[in-house]
Amino acid sequence: MDSRDAQLEQQSTNLSSEFSLIAKYFKDLTGQRGVELGIGDDAALLVPEPGRQIVVATDTLVETVHFPPSASAEQIASRALCVNLSDMAAMGAKPRWFTLALTIPKHLANKQWLQGFSRGLAEISAQFDVALVGGDTTAGPLCISITMIGDVPVGEALQRSGAQVGDAIYVTGELADGAAALQAITNPKSPLHNSERLLTRFYRPQPQIELGIKLRGIASACIDISDGLVADLGHICAASSVNAQLSGALIPVHREVSENYPQHSLRWALSGGDDYQLCFTVPQVRRSVIDELIAESGLTATLVGQIVACKVCHELVEIDGEILSPNNRGFDHFSS
Amino acid sequence: MDSRDAQLEQQSTNLSSEFSLIAKYFKDLTGQRGVELGIGDDAALLVPEPGRQIVVATDTLVETVHFPPSASAEQIASRALCVNLSDMAAMGAKPRWFTLALTIPKHLANKQWLQGFSRGLAEISAQFDVALVGGDTTAGPLCISITMIGDVPVGEALQRSGAQVGDAIYVTGELADGAAALQAITNPKSPLHNSERLLTRFYRPQPQIELGIKLRGIASACIDISDGLVADLGHICAASSVNAQLSGALIPVHREVSENYPQHSLRWALSGGDDYQLCFTVPQVRRSVIDELIAESGLTATLVGQIVACKVCHELVEIDGEILSPNNRGFDHFSS
Repeated sequence: MDSRDAQLEQQSTNLSSEFSLIAKYFKDLTGQRGVELGIGDDAALLVPEPGRQIVVATDTLVETVHFPPSASAEQIASRALCVNLSDMAAMGAKPRWFTLALTIPKHLANKQWLQGFSRGLAEISAQFDVALVGGDTTAGPLCISITMIGDVPVGEALQRSGAQVGDAIYVTGELADGAAALQAITNPKSPLHNSERLLTRFYRPQPQIELGIKLRGIASACIDISDGLVADLGHICAASSVNAQLSGALIPVHREVSENYPQHSLRWALSGGDDYQLCFTVPQVRRSVIDELIAESGLTATLVGQIVACKVCHELVEIDGEILSPNNRGFDHFSS
Repeated sequence: MDSRDAQLEQQSTNLSSEFSLIAKYFKDLTGQRGVELGIGDDAALLVPEPGRQIVVATDTLVETVHFPPSASAEQIASRALCVNLSDMAAMGAKPRWFTLALTIPKHLANKQWLQGFSRGLAEISAQFDVALVGGDTTAGPLCISITMIGDVPVGEALQRSGAQVGDAIYVTGELADGAAALQAITNPKSPLHNSERLLTRFYRPQPQIELGIKLRGIASACIDISDGLVADLGHICAASSVNAQLSGALIPVHREVSENYPQHSLRWALSGGDDYQLCFTVPQVRRSVIDELIAESGLTATLVGQIVACKVCHELVEIDGEILSPNNRGFDHFSS
């Protein structure tokens, strides 16, 4: 029996939920709205509301892939939860519950790290009124997988497949922050290395939940921008069998980024990813509703282009007349 | 920027679901029963049946912690799904949908490995009629996290907290197989190194779904045996504020294990874990129902002891008069 096998035998049992780190450090995160039975049994019992569909999404964060080794426990937790909530926003769903699969190396399984992680989860779960209802804590390389469960009235979910020729294309907030933040965090020589704004954008990218809910019945398609505008709008195009035309001058980028990285900011906005804004399409007949929302509710959304008929199926997005294929950008972890 | 940061930047985007390995290799696993929208959008849309509660559980498997490096992709997948289904069995729930968070090192992200993994998932998901509805594939150390979602009629879920003094304690199947299998797999000198039965018990531990459903309204408490009988029965005791008395002679162990490991088999049955059988309690007035089930339906369940009043709260389980605390057994990954 080699050392790995010995380790396997020694550690072969699961952490039991009653005595687990989940129960010990995260019990205050188990709100009771719609939760008949939370942490502490083999599974959670949840009560869906009548007339609503269940919305489920899973996202995993791995150290060095999705956050740098310098990230604090609190930062990792808040980013993991925000990223998962963003999928609910993209569906127009109200997030309600989540489970946490936390794999941590032994050297991090201490009170300080776990309390920090719990604090990060607590802040975001309180802000968005979601309850931790279960999970699993395992020894291993740092990896956080969250499954978010929300709900939406039957038939009202925002999907990728509804975009029609002529629809206007909007994005929320500002793009390129995700890539700029990564550059700022990992490169001490970056002119924005100390930007609090970018640090917050990276570790607490605010999921557009409220906006997603408002877009029900207005947007024809919606997606969150995790892989970059070209790739994610490309998903809408593929699902809707349409193409998209963007105008580079309209793409919203924060002045901090465009001034410090004039050479990079448009590329980052188009393909940098990690922005967790929404990209959505709106039929022309409903554009006035969006314009009113923008004017009245502090909603930040910018018109960036329009949906056009499918020319060549695999060349989906044009910007200023230049065709950009999502394949130009290596958003597949295994392709690079 | 050091090499890890470079790796981070290079790989910072998520695999998008449309182009991801999940969609490519696992699309045939997305059944349509109760699934309005499966893989391919930001989240899945599921349709709960009226009058039922949602049951959710998450379990993670990590290489060398939960399976040996020698495990094939198919074996890892089937074990991951079976282990997660076992939590549904313990709740008396009908499993319906699951999400998969698959973190794999680059050298495994090839067609052969992924097809093997998909085959393992397909076999078990077909057997138990569950649909893969979403997930995330990420580059990193091998780690599989599954969130299983099932349902149960309102008020009928089996919980840990219902055991009463005088209740009979049963276990399904045979115990000690999990620990014996681990020994057999990792030690070529084990007399059972070539036992097909133990290999199957380890990589395809059959979740007791059908039995769990039959136990609704009959069992007063139920749990699946993942950490060993003493630890898991201890959870029932803690949740129900009772103690348990077991009789060692009644604990069912397969002859293959008891004959080859006479010194170990009882200890493995009590604290070896990884058996994924059910332990449940039944009020004396309903024992005849269980006895009929055993006689008529091929149900294998064995009476192993009874629930008694709480003597000392943290010493929960007695076997043949000897008090065993769950703390005797290091079922916390981080305690060893």
